[in-house]
Amino acid sequence: MAALLRGSRLLLLKWDKHVDLVHVSTRSMASKTPVGFIGLGNMGSPMAKNLLRNGYPVIATDVFPESCKGLLDLGAQVVDSPAEVAEKADRIITMLPSSPNVIDVYTGPNGILKKVKKGTLLIDSSTIDPSVSKEMAVAAEKMGAVFMDAPVSGGVGAASMAKLTFMVGGVEEEYNAAQELLTCMGANVVYCGQVGSGQAAKICNNMLLAIGMIGTAETMNLGIRLGLDPKLLAKILNMSSGRCWSSDTYNPVPGVMEGVPSANNYQGGFGATLMAKDLGLAQNTATNTKTPIPLGSLAHQIYRVMCSRGYANKDFSSVFQFLREEE
Amino acid sequence: MAALLRGSRLLLLKWDKHVDLVHVSTRSMASKTPVGFIGLGNMGSPMAKNLLRNGYPVIATDVFPESCKGLLDLGAQVVDSPAEVAEKADRIITMLPSSPNVIDVYTGPNGILKKVKKGTLLIDSSTIDPSVSKEMAVAAEKMGAVFMDAPVSGGVGAASMAKLTFMVGGVEEEYNAAQELLTCMGANVVYCGQVGSGQAAKICNNMLLAIGMIGTAETMNLGIRLGLDPKLLAKILNMSSGRCWSSDTYNPVPGVMEGVPSANNYQGGFGATLMAKDLGLAQNTATNTKTPIPLGSLAHQIYRVMCSRGYANKDFSSVFQFLREEE
Amino acid sequence: MAALLRGSRLLLLKWDKHVDLVHVSTRSMASKTPVGFIGLGNMGSPMAKNLLRNGYPVIATDVFPESCKGLLDLGAQVVDSPAEVAEKADRIITMLPSSPNVIDVYTGPNGILKKVKKGTLLIDSSTIDPSVSKEMAVAAEKMGAVFMDAPVSGGVGAASMAKLTFMVGGVEEEYNAAQELLTCMGANVVYCGQVGSGQAAKICNNMLLAIGMIGTAETMNLGIRLGLDPKLLAKILNMSSGRCWSSDTYNPVPGVMEGVPSANNYQGGFGATLMAKDLGLAQNTATNTKTPIPLGSLAHQIYRVMCSRGYANKDFSSVFQFLREEE
Amino acid sequence: MAALLRGSRLLLLKWDKHVDLVHVSTRSMASKTPVGFIGLGNMGSPMAKNLLRNGYPVIATDVFPESCKGLLDLGAQVVDSPAEVAEKADRIITMLPSSPNVIDVYTGPNGILKKVKKGTLLIDSSTIDPSVSKEMAVAAEKMGAVFMDAPVSGGVGAASMAKLTFMVGGVEEEYNAAQELLTCMGANVVYCGQVGSGQAAKICNNMLLAIGMIGTAETMNLGIRLGLDPKLLAKILNMSSGRCWSSDTYNPVPGVMEGVPSANNYQGGFGATLMAKDLGLAQNTATNTKTPIPLGSLAHQIYRVMCSRGYANKDFSSVFQFLREEE
Repeated sequence: MAALLRGSRLLLLKWDKHVDLVHVSTRSMASKTPVGFIGLGNMGSPMAKNLLRNGYPVIATDVFPESCKGLLDLGAQVVDSPAEVAEKADRIITMLPSSPNVIDVYTGPNGILKKVKKGTLLIDSSTIDPSVSKEMAVAAEKMGAVFMDAPVSGGVGAASMAKLTFMVGGVEEEYNAAQELLTCMGANVVYCGQVGSGQAAKICNNMLLAIGMIGTAETMNLGIRLGLDPKLLAKILNMSSGRCWSSDTYNPVPGVMEGVPSANNYQGGFGATLMAKDLGLAQNTATNTKTPIPLGSLAHQIYRVMCSRGYANKDFSSVFQFLREEE
Repeated sequence: MAALLRGSRLLLLKWDKHVDLVHVSTRSMASKTPVGFIGLGNMGSPMAKNLLRNGYPVIATDVFPESCKGLLDLGAQVVDSPAEVAEKADRIITMLPSSPNVIDVYTGPNGILKKVKKGTLLIDSSTIDPSVSKEMAVAAEKMGAVFMDAPVSGGVGAASMAKLTFMVGGVEEEYNAAQELLTCMGANVVYCGQVGSGQAAKICNNMLLAIGMIGTAETMNLGIRLGLDPKLLAKILNMSSGRCWSSDTYNPVPGVMEGVPSANNYQGGFGATLMAKDLGLAQNTATNTKTPIPLGSLAHQIYRVMCSRGYANKDFSSVFQFLREEE
Repeated sequence: MAALLRGSRLLLLKWDKHVDLVHVSTRSMASKTPVGFIGLGNMGSPMAKNLLRNGYPVIATDVFPESCKGLLDLGAQVVDSPAEVAEKADRIITMLPSSPNVIDVYTGPNGILKKVKKGTLLIDSSTIDPSVSKEMAVAAEKMGAVFMDAPVSGGVGAASMAKLTFMVGGVEEEYNAAQELLTCMGANVVYCGQVGSGQAAKICNNMLLAIGMIGTAETMNLGIRLGLDPKLLAKILNMSSGRCWSSDTYNPVPGVMEGVPSANNYQGGFGATLMAKDLGLAQNTATNTKTPIPLGSLAHQIYRVMCSRGYANKDFSSVFQFLREEE
Repeated sequence: MAALLRGSRLLLLKWDKHVDLVHVSTRSMASKTPVGFIGLGNMGSPMAKNLLRNGYPVIATDVFPESCKGLLDLGAQVVDSPAEVAEKADRIITMLPSSPNVIDVYTGPNGILKKVKKGTLLIDSSTIDPSVSKEMAVAAEKMGAVFMDAPVSGGVGAASMAKLTFMVGGVEEEYNAAQELLTCMGANVVYCGQVGSGQAAKICNNMLLAIGMIGTAETMNLGIRLGLDPKLLAKILNMSSGRCWSSDTYNPVPGVMEGVPSANNYQGGFGATLMAKDLGLAQNTATNTKTPIPLGSLAHQIYRVMCSRGYANKDFSSVFQFLREEE
């Protein structure tokens, strides 16, 4: 009964597509094999909970054991190391802050690959350098396992409501198996190509997002200085060729839109630090492939300076505030 | 009957709003007072023709008299100077390449203001520095005339099909009078505020457009280098926060979309030179108002370098080609 | 004999402040015709005083009459307007904040050109747009006067010690006459070519200076982050191809050099606001001549943002502090 | 006495090529232990030859055995792999194109560390990421060997004439031993600090060099457009605060200086590709240390675009030509 209720909540959360999820998830509870989950931070925790809610037993671990508490209360099994997860689950999801953590969790002394079973499906949802994803895939293949990269777009809210978008890279034959799990945690799952291409797509999107956001902030600021009303200017841009997601969905100017970080003193949302990190990845991949990205590089530098000047934890749309004349 | 046919064509061209334009235009042919039109280049000519088609007698002039030929054949009266236009019409539209031309046509020795009648409505559709628009408005006011700026977005095709967008700045009481004429030449007419704010809106839009276009070109190029399929990458961006007009409507990568300059070797469209000019205006207004526009400045520089390297007359989306590794 | 004495005095004046200035100036007062001086701000005041010290009677004016007090005490005659200066002197020096002030002082209702005598030598030491210098020269020529631009490099200290560098543009035949006065106020006088070329040289130098300074700040900061000792790094750069004035003469890192603003919390020196102004002039001339200046543009934007973030009045070498991680 | 002679010979060697090199090297051959040299490209070959000329027996290898021919003729012993070099020499110098080559030569299956003797001194003169230098040092230490980084400044000419500058990082106690060899190949040897700091100094210098060069090119181009004579402008900059190595020693404008690549159609010198590589290293270290380098990043992008547009093999001062309007 509790499961039933939980299931129906899920149904609503996902604004679902006419599928009797409640029935499905209750029925399959008994028959599902466990899923490993490593990395229970702000994003990983709600993601793992959504697996539980969909009836998957979860075997979890984190370098900070206290992070696992919430999941333990919901019935997950908590173990001591990635290696131990690998002993007990043949599908494992990792959600970690950066490349070195991923390398350690997979190939470190207590890493997954020390104990991984042949045929295990490894899905890494961290946002990291695509070349590291490729290295992990090679290392996994040597052990007879399959590695896919599946970074997400969407923040903590989307993670809680299972509305993330997953961009997936890896061998196509395993995509369906990955999709089964990812749809429990996200609203969109997109197959992008070979290993690393999920990361590539994520990095590309966020680079263009950063450019569009800074561009929108500059443009709105210039228009305001020239005497235009901000709401009117946003309206004109949005019906013209200047239109972009940052102008029509996430406008950085206080007072133009509601329900966005600019309406809330740039709290919440996607921090400037995180944007700087993703732009650093874009820069690294561009440098390594000798690809010119003049605006992407400058966007990176602007967010890097912002982090030095007290904007690290504000939403990335606060670049509007950063560029404005001080009062 | 000819008028009737012409009218109905117009109706179709404008995908109109349930108005019996045919009837209106035929009936008012006789009773309409003439409209002056100065500057019959690639844009001005089709605009003036649309006034004629809407039943307005047109008094035209251009520094290159041969430019007036097409209009003459359609029944316009061609005169020798802006001053002469001002003697014969109390509504005048100007469409000129740049600020110095506007200054000359209005305040030069044979300029409009030498002969302008009190109460004349002057509408400048050139794209120029907003501060020049303000100067012209002051000069016009001294002569008892009213000056409005009404730059357009949309190219030669939109001008021919009367589908331009006009961004209008000037005293609000005169807006209706301006709108009457502008709707003959455009599909959208937006009131932006005081004199100069039409220019401000235009400049802001094009700056954000340039940033979005270069950003899209960099992003698509990086993604392709990282192994992503260009169409798939465009699709992912367009369903995500990287979405912008340049990615979803005017993609710069050959093969991603049809009917755009990138599908036609970057011919037609909006030339890099024109974009560089508009970015120069954005830069000037930003410098003068002490507004930081880091990405806008860099976009300006990139189009300026492109003009130096053989891209002057290619569509501005050719920045994708400019940034690619040479074969 | 007097000339001989005056010459040797002058020589001393520039390098030695322990000179009987009063005696010199009193004695030669009789034989010299008066020089007009308009604009007695931080720079203009000490410059005009050096004219007095060299025996030139000075006719001065300023929009803020109180600025003239110090000069009045030293024996200058203070009048009410530029026009009045022009009535009384046939050599006039102007030192004003920006282009609009220059336009007003020369061509305004009480401007110099309202009363200028034929043959008058007009020397403008303001830093302004070269195109405005050219306009002023044309306007002066119409009145039979000669206009030269002679902007300075060097700050308030150099102005006080008559150690400024003047970069002079104008007709070559008048250069000697200008040089006679300018050597009283500066250590170097360089003839640059036609009218406006003094401004051009000044703007070019300051643009390269800004680029070198930001570059040095970035480089020193990066080296420090990588574990290098700042003094050692400066030494290495200065013996290598990274060497520039900002690294070897005006190093922006506290502790590397003495006697520079970085050793004094970035007080004194050349304010970020002034650098932003000069870079705005560089940007304007570049935009107008369609010259690409990617690093110059970005340097401009960086100083513009710095002005928005509280660095307006700090020396321009404080860009090092601006780029550093906050404590 | 032999040491005395050797010393005076060395002194001459650096400034005079008319020296009886054969005699010197033959005589001292007996008393010196062999030095390994790995990587005999354009730089490595003349460096190794200078070791031979100074009387050091050389044990050499290269992935392209034909590269060793010249050295073989001069009496060097050529072996098959880095491992074999390590068996035969306890001082080894490496000079390789990039990080992956260094990693392979040290830690690969036939790498130095497979056979290195305890106490061996390993000196890497490649220009690579400082973090790779640190990794190599750790790996070497595990085998009881000592690793130092000693990248050079100066090109093929300086390598031939033993006039390179070496920037050395590593444990201070081993510096003298390194210096003994490096002085045979260079005119300046600078100790920079812990391992990796030689690379750091090199990267920092070249980043500032690139910024200064592009800045000089922009400035000279702008000045020329504004009507200034290029030689006069260079002279003014060089006596003012715009002065830098690129303006006073390596001016990028044809006709301003002799004996530099700009006087020879930008042939020879330091190719744009190599500058782009070094700027990529600067960018990587800056990204990894979260250091903002806005001008450094843009300089990187400009050289990257130049490489895409046909300037890859021209001297890096050809940025002046890249930015000029096409004829």
